[in-house]
Parts: sequence; C-alpha cells; structure tokens
Amino acid sequence: MAVVAPVVAVAEIAATVAKLMDTKQFRAFAHQVVDWMADYLEDNEQLPVFPDIQPGDIRQQIPPSPPSQGEDFKHILEDFQRLIVPGMTHWNHPGWFAYFPANHSPPSVLAEMLTAAMGAQCMSWQTSPAATELEQVVLDWLRQMLKLDDPWVGCIQDTASSSTLVALLSARERITEHLFGQQGSAAPDANRLVVYASTEAHSSIDKAVKLSGIGLEQLRKIPVDKDFAMRPEALAASIQQDIKAGLRPTCVIATVGTTSSTAIDPLQAIGSICQAHNIWLHVDAAYGGSAAMLPEMRYILNGIEAADSLVFNPHKWMLTNFDCSAYFVRDIDTLLRTFRSDPEYLKTSYDPQVVNFRDWGIPLGRRFRALKLWFVLRSYGVEGLQQFLRKHISWAQELTMWVNQSPNFECLAPAPFALVCLRYHPPHLDEDDPQLDTLNQRILTTINERGRFHLTHTRLNNQYTIRVSIGQRKTTLEHVKALWQELQDVAEALPLP
Amino acid sequence: MAVVAPVVAVAEIAATVAKLMDTKQFRAFAHQVVDWMADYLEDNEQLPVFPDIQPGDIRQQIPPSPPSQGEDFKHILEDFQRLIVPGMTHWNHPGWFAYFPANHSPPSVLAEMLTAAMGAQCMSWQTSPAATELEQVVLDWLRQMLKLDDPWVGCIQDTASSSTLVALLSARERITEHLFGQQGSAAPDANRLVVYASTEAHSSIDKAVKLSGIGLEQLRKIPVDKDFAMRPEALAASIQQDIKAGLRPTCVIATVGTTSSTAIDPLQAIGSICQAHNIWLHVDAAYGGSAAMLPEMRYILNGIEAADSLVFNPHKWMLTNFDCSAYFVRDIDTLLRTFRSDPEYLKTSYDPQVVNFRDWGIPLGRRFRALKLWFVLRSYGVEGLQQFLRKHISWAQELTMWVNQSPNFECLAPAPFALVCLRYHPPHLDEDDPQLDTLNQRILTTINERGRFHLTHTRLNNQYTIRVSIGQRKTTLEHVKALWQELQDVAEALPLP
Repeated sequence: MAVVAPVVAVAEIAATVAKLMDTKQFRAFAHQVVDWMADYLEDNEQLPVFPDIQPGDIRQQIPPSPPSQGEDFKHILEDFQRLIVPGMTHWNHPGWFAYFPANHSPPSVLAEMLTAAMGAQCMSWQTSPAATELEQVVLDWLRQMLKLDDPWVGCIQDTASSSTLVALLSARERITEHLFGQQGSAAPDANRLVVYASTEAHSSIDKAVKLSGIGLEQLRKIPVDKDFAMRPEALAASIQQDIKAGLRPTCVIATVGTTSSTAIDPLQAIGSICQAHNIWLHVDAAYGGSAAMLPEMRYILNGIEAADSLVFNPHKWMLTNFDCSAYFVRDIDTLLRTFRSDPEYLKTSYDPQVVNFRDWGIPLGRRFRALKLWFVLRSYGVEGLQQFLRKHISWAQELTMWVNQSPNFECLAPAPFALVCLRYHPPHLDEDDPQLDTLNQRILTTINERGRFHLTHTRLNNQYTIRVSIGQRKTTLEHVKALWQELQDVAEALPLP
Repeated sequence: MAVVAPVVAVAEIAATVAKLMDTKQFRAFAHQVVDWMADYLEDNEQLPVFPDIQPGDIRQQIPPSPPSQGEDFKHILEDFQRLIVPGMTHWNHPGWFAYFPANHSPPSVLAEMLTAAMGAQCMSWQTSPAATELEQVVLDWLRQMLKLDDPWVGCIQDTASSSTLVALLSARERITEHLFGQQGSAAPDANRLVVYASTEAHSSIDKAVKLSGIGLEQLRKIPVDKDFAMRPEALAASIQQDIKAGLRPTCVIATVGTTSSTAIDPLQAIGSICQAHNIWLHVDAAYGGSAAMLPEMRYILNGIEAADSLVFNPHKWMLTNFDCSAYFVRDIDTLLRTFRSDPEYLKTSYDPQVVNFRDWGIPLGRRFRALKLWFVLRSYGVEGLQQFLRKHISWAQELTMWVNQSPNFECLAPAPFALVCLRYHPPHLDEDDPQLDTLNQRILTTINERGRFHLTHTRLNNQYTIRVSIGQRKTTLEHVKALWQELQDVAEALPLP
C-alpha cells in the first residue's frame, strides 16, 4: 500500500546525500514527501484507524540513545514509514467517529508547509507584520461568519483549554480590579471568588479553576435538564446562595455543544443572570461554534450579546489543521492588563500603533497559524463550509432515525450537531441493567479492534454511551451506513446475556 | 526573485481546479509549494530581513469580509507570494541577528510536512501511540545529550513561558500539598508563598507568578553581579528574611543564559540554598540549554542535580521548527497531580500502562511535535549539532575580540554563548552620556531599515545595548564580518554629537 511502502525512488537521491542536507537535497526529498502526503490523503482508508499494537511496541524499535553521526535522510524516511505510520491513530481517516473530529484539508496542509518553510515566530507585529495583520483580518472574518457584533475581537490560541484558562484569568482580574495578579491570595476577596459551569462542562474548566488559583472547591457544578443542558434557574439559585454567603460570583462558563453529548446551555437565560450580577460569561463553543455559521443553527449563540468571551476551534470541525483555537473577547483592556508584559528586549518602536498578539495569551512565542485559516476560508468560501457542516448534521439526523427505528438500539441524548449518542439495548434488558454497560463496552472494543472505524465513549446518566461523532472530511454517508451496519452486526454476534 | 515571483506553472493546473481541492490537485499544488519552499530556503537572503512596510499596509490589501464562494488555489498562492511574503520578518534569513534565533532546518521542515498531512491530535497514547512513544524516546535522547541523570523525564511544551508556568504551578501545589489547587486562597499559607528570580530573569516569570495566583508582590527580584548573574548570597539573605517574616519560599527560578545578555546564574550555589530550604528550583535554560550538549559548555548545568525542573527550547538554537520546548522534571507525581484530569470521555483501557502527555501541561490537545525533533537529531547526529553550536560560539568570540580592539565600540557583557552585547562608544563621550543611547538607537534603526541584517536591543545597567545574536543556520562568518563592518560604517556616518 502506497502510504506505508518504502519510497523506492529515494534510493537514487541517497547516494548524493551529505551529512547536512542542502537545499537541492531538500527539494528532492520534499517532492518525495509530497507524493507520500498525497498518497496518504488519498489512501489512508486502507490503514486501520487505530493500529494493532500494544504499549511499548514502537518504543522498543527505536534505539535508546541518539546517533553520534548524522544519518542519511533516506533511512529516516524509511523508518517513518516502517515504524511511525503503522503506529499512528489516523484522525483524518474516513472511518474516524471518535472524540470530536480534528479534520484538516488540502489547503490547510499546504499552508502548514509554507508556515514551516518560513519558520517565523509571530509574537509581535515587528517579528511578523503580515502574520499579525492576517490574523486580525481572518479572525474578523470568523467574527462576521458567527454574526458577532463589532466590539468582538479575536485571536488564535492553541486549544480551547488554554482559551478557557485565559478567559477565567481575565475574569479573576476584572473582579479583583487586577489585585489578584498583583497580590495573590492577599488580594481583597481573593478567597471569595466563585465559578459556575454545568455538570456536563468540559474537564478543562475544572483544570482552569484549579490552575488559576481560584480553587476547585470554588467551582459550582450546576445541574442539567433531561437534555444535559444547564438549568438556568439552578444557576440563579446557586448564585443567590453564594451572594448571601458573602461570596463573589466571578465567572459562568456556558457550553454550546458539550463534549459528552453536544448539549447546548441556554445562553439567553444564563446571560441575563450574568448581566444582573455583573458576572463574566465565557462561552465554550469549542466544537459547536462552527455550526453557528449556518443560519439555521445560529440560534445556538442567541444571547451571546451578554457574554464576555467565546472560544471555538476551527481545528475541530472546520478543516483547519490542529492547532487553531479562535478566542473572542469584547473587553480588550482587561485581556491586555492580564497578559501584557513589556520588558525592554521586546519593546519596538511600533508598539503604540500595533497589536502584539504575545499580549493576548499565555505563551510568548507564536506560530503563524492565521495562514491556514486564510487558505481554508478562501478555498471553501463561507458557502462551501456551510455545505460541509450541513452534510454531517443531516447524516447525524439520518443515523438518529435509524437508531430510533431499531428495536435493539437507542439514542441517549438529542443530536443537535453531528454527534449521535447511542447504545445497544435489547428489549429484554431493563434500562438500568448493568449488563448494558458491559455489552456496549464490548461492542466498542470489537469495532475498534477491527480497525475500519474508531469510536469512543462517555457516560450519560451514568450509562455507558457510544459516541458516533461525524465530521471527517472524507467521511461519506456510505461510511455512516457501514458503521451502523457494523454496530448491528457486532451487537447481534454477542452472546446474549 | 524566485521567492516572491508568482508561480507561473500553476496557471496550467488552475484550469482544472474545482471548488474543493481533490487529492490530485493537492499533489500538483504541493509540488509547486515545495519548489517555492526550496527556493525560499535557498534564496531568502535576497529579501530584506525586515520588510519595508508600515502598520496597516498588509491589512488594507485584504478584503474585509470572507468570500462566499471558494476561490481557485492559484489565486490564493499568488496572494501569499504577493502580500504575505513581502510583509514578513524573515527569521530564517542569514542576516538574522535579532532576539534569539528560531532556526529551523530542512529535515525539520520535512517533518512538519508529514505532521501536517497526518493531522493527528496527540493528547493520549491511544490517540497517537507512535507520537507518544517517539516523544518519550527523543526526550530521553535529549536528556542524555544534556547529561541529566536517569530520574529526569521530559516532554514537549509549546514555549518556555508555558514550561515555566507549569513548573511554578507544580511548585505551588507541592508546597501546599495540593491544597492551593483545591481551595485557592483559602488554602493554608496560600498568601505566604514567595518566588525568587534575578533582576535579569525573563518577563515570562513575572507573568507566571501573576497568572498562578501567587501574586507579583510575592516575587523577589534578586540582584545580580557585574556579569548579570544572580548573587546567591543575596538570594540566601532574601530567603532568610522571608522565613523570619513567616513566609514560605516556594520556588527559585535560575536562568542559564538570560535574554538580555545570556548571563549564567550559578546553579550550584543556588541549588544548595534551595535544598537547604526544600524550595523548588526551576532552571530556565530556554536559550542556553542547547549549549550544554558541548562537553566544554556542560559546566553551565553544574548543580542541576538540585533542580526540580528544567526547560530548554530546541526551537531556538537546535534547528527544530518553532514550537518545541523541552520540559524536564524529576518528580512526575507532582506534575501529574497538578495537571491530570480524567473525565469519562477521555478514559481509555490503556491508561494504567501508558503515558498520556495531555496530563503533563496546560492544553489538552497536542500536535505531533516529536517527529521534527527525531528528524533533526538523526539528520545531524550529536556531533553535527555540536559542530553547529561551536561555530556560532566561536564567531561570537571573534566578534567580541573585534569589538574589544575597536576604539569606538565596547562590549557591555560577557558572551559565554553566541550573543554579543555591544554599543558604539566614541572615546570623547563619558560612559554615562545619555547621547550614547540615542546614537546606538539610531545605529540599530538604520541597520534594520537597510534590511540586510536585523538586530534588537536591550538595556544593561540602564544603558541602551545592541544585541548581536548569532545562530541562524545559514549565517556564516562572512555575515558576521559584514555586520561588524556595517555597524562601524553606520556609526561613522552619524553626525558626531
């Protein structure tokens, strides 16, 4: 198979390889690599999505110490194909239905190539004027696509976890008038800050509350309704109780598309509560945000006017290579006061006139990530991206229908996006029968071992749930049908409990 | 010039381009892109290092709204060459002497291409077994190259800023027995934690102390000696004073190669102090760490046995594309207890047997960054990298000699690595004459405007200092000589004050 076979033509080049690869050799190898890349994009369906290996299998094939002398690149490329490729989980395989997608696309990959060749470090305007200004423009394009008002301004972060930490730190600084950052725990009210998120919110929120120094015990997990969305009246009650106790509600994190089941917290109701109490509202739309560019799905952001920050990841469901997380805020001053640093060796004469994105987040150094976003937005156009998203959403609706019509399977949550939460449930077993967990675990394991599809799980109402997340670029309706067939086949082949 | 001229042959392909690029088209465009990349690596010296543009110049040439329809990739690539390339600061230009290097290399760029094509998200072993195990191996190679003992274990972070924040949060959790993360400011002693770094330490340390919730007022800036290295007796005194005041010394950050002047804090003396008081010692060797792989330079890490964590950036001076920061710790348990999260949807059956690097830092998602490090280490070999580093260090010594021999220039700091801190100082001006700042500022601005070289500055003893940082892959001794000539020419052409 092309994508794992050794590159034969490289042998001719190898004869001329010196210790240090010169540009001529780079050109030749890069053309070889491109052919491998194109083969991979074309043929990766022939590989198992998840490799048939055990922990340690790869490691033991790599020498335990670095080589003293440089090696011919020919051998390195052969080892890449022999050792690495067969040991990878293939996120861009059409049989990928696990987690959420991290889909990419040909234009995005081309941008990453150019980014790598330039190797610019884009911390400041001066260190990369075009990268900085392109980031400003494409983030404003995204803003328009999500129909966010003018005051919203965006930048690229690495992940939603980092974006959420950035939001929480901004909230911490705003409510303490920037004394928390200055004085730490000695700041007035430092031990009275409280954060709210639903019981279904992402684990990165717990992590952010912990890392920010607010403290996990100050995180209130608000109960959800039957559709796994935050109950605003429970949020209001929790806030009231905290205020009565002399605490200071600092930040509410609402999720638009939770990780377990893509539940949508009601922003409008939550936003009103936040506004009434001047609480920072951060919206985690890491997965769901892409869908907001569909007019028929824009309702998921209704109420966003009351929010202070929003994150959504083009690297999930918008054809842009990981990492590319879009973080939007309305209050730039708080962001800058929280993250800016200005040592002499970073000062430039342009600073008063420009945006220096190093001051918009945690790391100082930054890759040129706006380029891939620009390439994707221009290659697909807004309508092309809308078609792409609509396809997945409609297939999820079809799958939901098939599941609902089947006597032996059931959906465990609504599917407003392109994730279907389901389980095998033969009618003779009670809905709380613990054997259901075991059965579904075995179905998932079997399918993953077969290697045609890759699935992951969650728990909803403490029931083991198979997540079918549709979103790979090369996935077709035929793949969804084949997966549905395989789910049924594997389930039927199980010995009945 | 090849690197900015439009790609002519693309026109032939464009005729066949559909809205969505298929694999065949990707292959053709990727070969075009490779030729541009190779031209760029070969010819980028023909471009000015810093572009001749003003803030807003790029932005105003890009449409303010996203296109509805997809565009031919031909036009996108043309725009990249027409708008973006001439607007970039070229970090991989042989005339780069600014900041520190962010050098890359042909093998590293090839690895980034393969990484982009696979588009894997490497948060867990299960989501990328080969990426996880390769990261374990190559970080252990680095460990051996730095002659760190066995107990040290490494992982890749994005930047040294993030690595330092990770270290500080680990220190915060260790000293409070993980109560800070749980209870925040209500944790016992939360408002008594103190952090120490020299007055020359990097701005990311101030930022980390602020973000961690320890609070900037709890950061002691320890004075430095005449060579800008931390004075250990001043550190000891500061710690004693804090202990007397009932405070809890939590973390000392020592720098091996400061950003302003590459000063080396004395690790052995600092380490003894930290051990005596059970203080977390974090070593920021972001730039300098690479040099520790030279036997003659390994002394810079003498005393590392007493440290708890170490960061050094292969993306600076080790031919590996940004981002790739190597973070080493000895106490994995503290790291994991600080950063691990374990929601149901991320659990895998392999978890008890494997390393999941998502638990080693702030972001959940991770790119496959070990591949480029593997390609670089194998392509150059340890000896190849050593030669590469020695070249730069010896040129810095030559430049230092020329400066010292010149009647009109002077060095303002020792140059133990490959950074020379210098200024123009005609003998008739006193060393504190404020005109020296203006003169040197004008020299730097003039050279940067000419575009052959790029320089940045700092302040040492409050004197404006030109930093000449040697470390680009394609920089030769001839470039260093030419820069030295240009410094003298520009200085002589200035109207005498």
